[in-house]
Amino acid sequence: MNGRVDRLRERLEEPLLVSDAANVFYLSGLESSNAALLVEPERVRLFTDFRYAEGARSIEGVEFVEAKRDLYQTLSELLDGTIGFEATSLTFERHARLHAGGLDLVPRYGRVEELRAVKDEDELDSIRRAAAIATIAFERFADKGDIVGHTERELAWRFEQFLHEANADGVSFPAHVASGPNAAKPHSNPGERRVEKGETVIVDAGCVVDGYCSDCTRTFSTGPLPDELQRAYDVCLDAQLVGLTAVKPGASGPGVDSAARDRIEAAGFGEAFGHGLGHGVGLLVHEDPRLAQESRSTLEVGNVVTVEPGIYLSGLGGIRIEDLVVVTDDGAEVLTSYPKDLRTLD
Amino acid sequence: MNGRVDRLRERLEEPLLVSDAANVFYLSGLESSNAALLVEPERVRLFTDFRYAEGARSIEGVEFVEAKRDLYQTLSELLDGTIGFEATSLTFERHARLHAGGLDLVPRYGRVEELRAVKDEDELDSIRRAAAIATIAFERFADKGDIVGHTERELAWRFEQFLHEANADGVSFPAHVASGPNAAKPHSNPGERRVEKGETVIVDAGCVVDGYCSDCTRTFSTGPLPDELQRAYDVCLDAQLVGLTAVKPGASGPGVDSAARDRIEAAGFGEAFGHGLGHGVGLLVHEDPRLAQESRSTLEVGNVVTVEPGIYLSGLGGIRIEDLVVVTDDGAEVLTSYPKDLRTLD
Repeated sequence: MNGRVDRLRERLEEPLLVSDAANVFYLSGLESSNAALLVEPERVRLFTDFRYAEGARSIEGVEFVEAKRDLYQTLSELLDGTIGFEATSLTFERHARLHAGGLDLVPRYGRVEELRAVKDEDELDSIRRAAAIATIAFERFADKGDIVGHTERELAWRFEQFLHEANADGVSFPAHVASGPNAAKPHSNPGERRVEKGETVIVDAGCVVDGYCSDCTRTFSTGPLPDELQRAYDVCLDAQLVGLTAVKPGASGPGVDSAARDRIEAAGFGEAFGHGLGHGVGLLVHEDPRLAQESRSTLEVGNVVTVEPGIYLSGLGGIRIEDLVVVTDDGAEVLTSYPKDLRTLD
Repeated sequence: MNGRVDRLRERLEEPLLVSDAANVFYLSGLESSNAALLVEPERVRLFTDFRYAEGARSIEGVEFVEAKRDLYQTLSELLDGTIGFEATSLTFERHARLHAGGLDLVPRYGRVEELRAVKDEDELDSIRRAAAIATIAFERFADKGDIVGHTERELAWRFEQFLHEANADGVSFPAHVASGPNAAKPHSNPGERRVEKGETVIVDAGCVVDGYCSDCTRTFSTGPLPDELQRAYDVCLDAQLVGLTAVKPGASGPGVDSAARDRIEAAGFGEAFGHGLGHGVGLLVHEDPRLAQESRSTLEVGNVVTVEPGIYLSGLGGIRIEDLVVVTDDGAEVLTSYPKDLRTLD
């Protein structure tokens, strides 16, 4: 079939039932909400329902099996023996049904995700293009200015339009725009609040090209900031730059996180940076490896990760600065090149 | 707290750990990719991480517990005794971790989903508005015309812009536009194919208002169709109208499906209609109840479902006609009012 399946086979102790949608896409190219692959030493079967049959039938190197809409009914009828399954995505109920069907099930963890974490040249090309589009959108957003008085929701849509006009296939997630006190909530949705003068506006967005995501955040100001917030920006940017220099092959997820976190803690903002420094990006906008204290990842050449420290000051505002980078032999190649000095829009 | 939690409590034999994101939102109003609720007789605890803390803290009637980013680590440390869990969404791995933490776990099925299937007036109001916006977007799409020579991808984006301009909060899924032979694939993604004359173009789209989705499909022609395809349209529309009349309180999912399916089978297109007739719509664009042969649903007043027969003729083209309806005392109230006679755009 293809090199990805061959590499997966080398890691398997028994046939693996691949049920996670991104993993199925990675191995077969089929995009479906209702599909599974059984990867065995000599064959690969692709199970999906009528809706995806035309697409599935045309995939080379896999045997297409038309399943019922109730995919797990078909799987429990057709499969037997000992098979591995993806323990972090298969639900309890589906596991129970396969078990009741007589299968001997072995939980396996991250077998396909580990492959996905190391991108090949084609994947990097798609991610580079997705990141370049994000950069263009930030340029157009800043060039246009005119954000004071507009709602977060209007600005989020404006940003998505710029992504589309720059030829994105779609967005990797709905664009986030958070202003003023809302910027102190790392994951608030853009709402009806109108941007005011003298505050920060966080814009976090990305797009999809050929199935692959980009992810980038910049924080703008709308005029002179309160001293505390200006200082937070400077500390956050310093931490982001330090984080970037810590990205290299062999670096640990906690190690890279600490490099940036130490700077923020030393400046007295440790409590205000409650999330991890970054995450892998690929077919999903959040995947392995993780840059965080609880991460067990070690970086490898070909990983694609975000580096995104944030400082969130309740009631006052927030800052987040995020780049998308590829791990190279020498360190990190930054894919999101929009400038990071504090820009004022009005 | 609120009536939804009270109604849920009446259905519980033991405390329930609500982990499905849509269910957490339904009960608490918190939108988070990393949250869980423990609903007990006298209290409700909401567990989520730092990123959602500001939002979680402001929710009345729940006790907010700040969890680690690794939510299930926190849950396995803090919870004990016998609790129910959502067997169709909790993964094998999370179940195993809670079990290893000493919890006595009882699989429960659809407890919150059953409540969600029956919409209250506020929910219906949001869905009505989302459906009205979809109707406006179809009107604008048809009024503009000018689709021949444009790619599916361009047209999908055009449609999404119309949704946005009509005040959608977002899309309920990326708009589907499938033309010519691509329309024979029920779930193909809009691509670079340019619409040609004399074929069908399926447009399937919906939007979100206050968290609630709409979903509507129309099939356009781009000039005189091959006889087989024209006949398929007529049969599909007839089946859709018959399906609508079958929607009423007490009707079964398989019964409504059969009403429409029988017409398509009688016309000789049975093999070409491989999916179910419809599905519930609410916070998710696919939820209970289901209108399909394998469904165990019985319709109730307040259900919101799609009625969407399709006929897919490999190599030739496809038809799908979909309305969103509310089940009322008398039958079905159609929310998507864009006309269904075959319209020609060029």
